Amino acid sequence: MDLCLTQHGIYELTFDIGEVVNDPFDVSVTVEFSHMNEQRRILGFYDGGTIFKVRFCPEQAGTWNYRVSSSHPRIHGIEGKFHCSECHADAGGPVRVSDKNGFILHNGERFLPIGTTCYAWAHQDSVTRQHTLNTLRQSPFNKVRMCVFPKWYPFSKDEHRYTDEPRYYPFERRSDGTWDFSRLNVDFFRRFEECVEQLLRISIQADIILFHPYDKWGFSSMSVEEDERYLRYVVARLGAYRNVWWSLANEWDFIAEKSEQHWDRLGEYLRDIDGHQRLISIHNGHKLFDYSRSWITHVSVQRRDLYLTTEEVDGLIDRYGKPVMYDEMGYEGNIPYAWGNLPPQEFVRRFWECYVRGGFGSHGETYLGVDRLLWWCHGGNLRGESVSRIQFLKQVLGELGPLRKIRLSWDDVCGGKEGEYYLFYFGNSQPLFRDIYVGEVNEYRVKIIDTWNMEIYEQDYLIKGDGRVNLPGRPYMAVLLIRRDL
Amino acid sequence: MDLCLTQHGIYELTFDIGEVVNDPFDVSVTVEFSHMNEQRRILGFYDGGTIFKVRFCPEQAGTWNYRVSSSHPRIHGIEGKFHCSECHADAGGPVRVSDKNGFILHNGERFLPIGTTCYAWAHQDSVTRQHTLNTLRQSPFNKVRMCVFPKWYPFSKDEHRYTDEPRYYPFERRSDGTWDFSRLNVDFFRRFEECVEQLLRISIQADIILFHPYDKWGFSSMSVEEDERYLRYVVARLGAYRNVWWSLANEWDFIAEKSEQHWDRLGEYLRDIDGHQRLISIHNGHKLFDYSRSWITHVSVQRRDLYLTTEEVDGLIDRYGKPVMYDEMGYEGNIPYAWGNLPPQEFVRRFWECYVRGGFGSHGETYLGVDRLLWWCHGGNLRGESVSRIQFLKQVLGELGPLRKIRLSWDDVCGGKEGEYYLFYFGNSQPLFRDIYVGEVNEYRVKIIDTWNMEIYEQDYLIKGDGRVNLPGRPYMAVLLIRRDL
Repeated sequence: MDLCLTQHGIYELTFDIGEVVNDPFDVSVTVEFSHMNEQRRILGFYDGGTIFKVRFCPEQAGTWNYRVSSSHPRIHGIEGKFHCSECHADAGGPVRVSDKNGFILHNGERFLPIGTTCYAWAHQDSVTRQHTLNTLRQSPFNKVRMCVFPKWYPFSKDEHRYTDEPRYYPFERRSDGTWDFSRLNVDFFRRFEECVEQLLRISIQADIILFHPYDKWGFSSMSVEEDERYLRYVVARLGAYRNVWWSLANEWDFIAEKSEQHWDRLGEYLRDIDGHQRLISIHNGHKLFDYSRSWITHVSVQRRDLYLTTEEVDGLIDRYGKPVMYDEMGYEGNIPYAWGNLPPQEFVRRFWECYVRGGFGSHGETYLGVDRLLWWCHGGNLRGESVSRIQFLKQVLGELGPLRKIRLSWDDVCGGKEGEYYLFYFGNSQPLFRDIYVGEVNEYRVKIIDTWNMEIYEQDYLIKGDGRVNLPGRPYMAVLLIRRDL
Repeated sequence: MDLCLTQHGIYELTFDIGEVVNDPFDVSVTVEFSHMNEQRRILGFYDGGTIFKVRFCPEQAGTWNYRVSSSHPRIHGIEGKFHCSECHADAGGPVRVSDKNGFILHNGERFLPIGTTCYAWAHQDSVTRQHTLNTLRQSPFNKVRMCVFPKWYPFSKDEHRYTDEPRYYPFERRSDGTWDFSRLNVDFFRRFEECVEQLLRISIQADIILFHPYDKWGFSSMSVEEDERYLRYVVARLGAYRNVWWSLANEWDFIAEKSEQHWDRLGEYLRDIDGHQRLISIHNGHKLFDYSRSWITHVSVQRRDLYLTTEEVDGLIDRYGKPVMYDEMGYEGNIPYAWGNLPPQEFVRRFWECYVRGGFGSHGETYLGVDRLLWWCHGGNLRGESVSRIQFLKQVLGELGPLRKIRLSWDDVCGGKEGEYYLFYFGNSQPLFRDIYVGEVNEYRVKIIDTWNMEIYEQDYLIKGDGRVNLPGRPYMAVLLIRRDL
């Protein structure tokens, strides 16, 4: 018995191969962990010097046996076992798909993702990173989209530069300055995994973007062999953190060098090497991926239209039979691009549309301020008006079960569970009243929800049959009906 | 020479057949008017007692000859001529289609339609009608959609009734109370044509809706023979008013008894009997009509989606090659239905989208107030906030030529004439600036237009090549570039 640890923690094995090898990232290390009938095949990774490590996150309590297979004879065949004590997983994960309508934690509780986006927060200086973590801790968000690779894109902290060079890079440079994609930068990944761990401590899912097109270094156009080596390394190093989700690519179709077939094969490869079976998806630019592919656990989608965004959520759920994370519906902000200059009212409207239709959304903020830190890229502080409304939405949703699209009339946007609860959302309409027919059998309590001013009024009469709900004639109202006895 | 009149006026012939006949609406009266090489075949109509009339609106000055053909021997074969003196048509019409991008007046000036909707104004009492005309006179509108048949629909002036019974009906009742669709009510049409004439006096186009589904009397489900008799009568009585447009039906597909083929045949019939060749279109409910049909002069369209409306305008222009009147994009108001409870900001946004994309729109207001008069139905007074913004839009457009969709980048909404003027519209985006590339050749003056606050600022530097336009970071902004020398 090497070590005692609890369920959902990380069991880390360290091996010293006793020599420095030329190609440490091509030394194969795989550990087979087994408990009762369950077996997990977990990759190890090189951690500098003569050291290799294997990280495993057991989902079952009890005694686990393991056996190492390696291309290095010094560690091949090592066996051992450890005891894992019971521990209820908290909101930190692991998160799994329950059905097409949602996600579930290991303890059986529903997980309601409320995402945000800080693509390059892990590449910022330590003070900015700490600001980001402080902001996240006080926010409604429980998932953050973040890139492994640094990001080459407007807007930089220095207004005279296109973007900022990162402090650390994921690969080593050769003496001539070119990149050696076969040698990963261990220091870079130690820093990166610290960010993932910091998120875990505050119960935030790390939606890790493995590839992206905002690149000037060539990281988006490596060979298949290099892509796979990189994936093995990231999966081995980070996959044991139970808050990890894999986002194979951001805007996959904006990486001109790689076809949909490439991503499909790479997605299968990722699924096959990840013994922890974390959630996997891929995020689009202009073109939807085929989310019916078996390696994709959930839909992670960006809007493709200037106007229609989260209105398509219920259609996507029906089409793919998987939960829909609308990871990019535009951002609250004031930059020139249409995806990044939404007023908070419109952004919150899209968020409500998304959840009422049974989906889940990700927030982002792109305000150009004097510090030139854009939350969506750098992290830091939030300054928008949508975040408090998203907190309010989260409270409203927290008191309900899952929402499934319900269509009572052509102009309803309604989610709920028929016969129990109905959440209607009226977007920017401003009706003075609305007649709602919810059947003759049950009586319903009526709550009028002002989603912008974050106020809830209870109507002082119940409705049954064809009931009239009086509204204030302002936009951004919702109405919640809950069966009297619930 | 019977009478001297001017071009675009109405030349009216009156015939007394000297006897009361049983089926006056089936007495055929057709007059062939000819001038030089031009010939017009104009239907006559029964005007009560023993009187038949023929109304003709000559578009050419000079001497016109005519010859009557009739099933009644007393007037068959009558011939005559009259002189028509020259007169420039004013904004009252007639309006013709110039090309797929617009309309033109007879004097060669561009006609820029800015519509509104008062479906049942002609059926209201005289005081309300006078209020409607006063409101229209002071409004930016130059076209109004109005029904011949009374309307059976919420909301009535009396809150305890579904709708109001009209004072007059277009058909006669039999002694048993049933309708005799073969006998039109001459008094009704005298009153109705007075409304059309009152609109002409204030240079407003009457977009006359010939059939509609808001019916409890059976007017929407007459036989083909009855429909045709009714059409002949309306065309003969009203077609000479040069401000008349024909809207064959409102929400044609909501009239369950009649197929698309029926409307297609009836549209051809209407085109064939109308010697004045007025504009003709047909307005949809959920299903677009095939606007490529030859009898349709322009597209008259209603939104079919809860969200996307006038964003489709440029697509419709390309698809049908005809001007697009977006006659129903939703209305500013506060009634329960999603089509009638838009806040003014969203309604004005749709209007701007429509015009910048090269289309034309119709306004409507559905505010439930204490007087229970909804502009969209009854007319009366306007109380919304969109009308002043539409006036402002009209001023902006009045200083430009036609707008054709220009696409400079994926998120531009821009109309104009390349190399001369560009009108960008940013909708509810709130960019702090925008970089616009309009070629290296010309310099452009830049006007920043706040479409909501109705203010225009001229930027104090010209742009050329890749030019930066600074914006206030608020929604509903437009930017107009005009080539320096224009």
